[in-house]
Amino acid sequence: MSSCVFCAIVDGTAPAVRVLEDDDVVAFLDIRPVARGHTLVVPRTHAARLEDLDPAAGAAMFRAGQRIARALARSELSTDGTNLVLNDGRAAFQTVFHAHLHVVPRWSGDRLRLGVGLLRRQSHDPESTAALIRDGLDRLTAEEHS
Amino acid sequence: MSSCVFCAIVDGTAPAVRVLEDDDVVAFLDIRPVARGHTLVVPRTHAARLEDLDPAAGAAMFRAGQRIARALARSELSTDGTNLVLNDGRAAFQTVFHAHLHVVPRWSGDRLRLGVGLLRRQSHDPESTAALIRDGLDRLTAEEHS
Ligand SMILES: [Zn+2]
Ligand SMILES: [Zn+2]
Repeated sequence: MSSCVFCAIVDGTAPAVRVLEDDDVVAFLDIRPVARGHTLVVPRTHAARLEDLDPAAGAAMFRAGQRIARALARSELSTDGTNLVLNDGRAAFQTVFHAHLHVVPRWSGDRLRLGVGLLRRQSHDPESTAALIRDGLDRLTAEEHS
Repeated sequence: MSSCVFCAIVDGTAPAVRVLEDDDVVAFLDIRPVARGHTLVVPRTHAARLEDLDPAAGAAMFRAGQRIARALARSELSTDGTNLVLNDGRAAFQTVFHAHLHVVPRWSGDRLRLGVGLLRRQSHDPESTAALIRDGLDRLTAEEHS
């Protein structure tokens, strides 16, 4: 028995309004949408965080999200754009701990505040920041090879 | 001569502080970060929108974003979470028309307003909404097979 609501949706024991499914993912409407057509793409295999997610499943999730974005523009919802958003970790507003991608329909002038760009500031010390990230990548690579 | 700043970064004619590159993508620090370590992942091949983006390039972009998120948690930036965000179209706050994925480092209590979840409302008429999206998917499939 899974206590994960998205696993229950994937295996059909919890209801959801599905829009797409394939071997890797299930996509269904968010029950509390920020916009009409707000869809979640969920890998079939449980993974709480990006840390646990098979990269192939992540890639499949993104492919499905891209496909739904393109479909929304062709649908009568007639979107002007889309935000694809993955919130990883409580600090990033993740609420269901089964990794998932939000597909958020957008229209010109919809006044939704999603997206990156509202609070930008000048970068300071980019070289040292990049060095820290590269160091993290090196640690990740070392783990993978150990 | 490209007028696309991200193409210029990819081909090395414009400066950027790179953190990762592979055959498919280049990742570099956003020059106007919303948080320290804010990174952009850019496919090497120009594509303005999700509509134009090779799905394999999109998948590679997401894989790199996931990898950077995992690296950030291992780095001295010591993130608690990450938002992966793609803004597709002006309506979705896209500003550079070469598709790219934002990797936004997050820490508990950082007060950044990114992510989905702030403005949720009850869904109304999900069945008809899903039918419209499925119809868009059918149109996309028909295009691909014509
Ligand atoms: Zn699950
Ligand atoms: Zn370009």
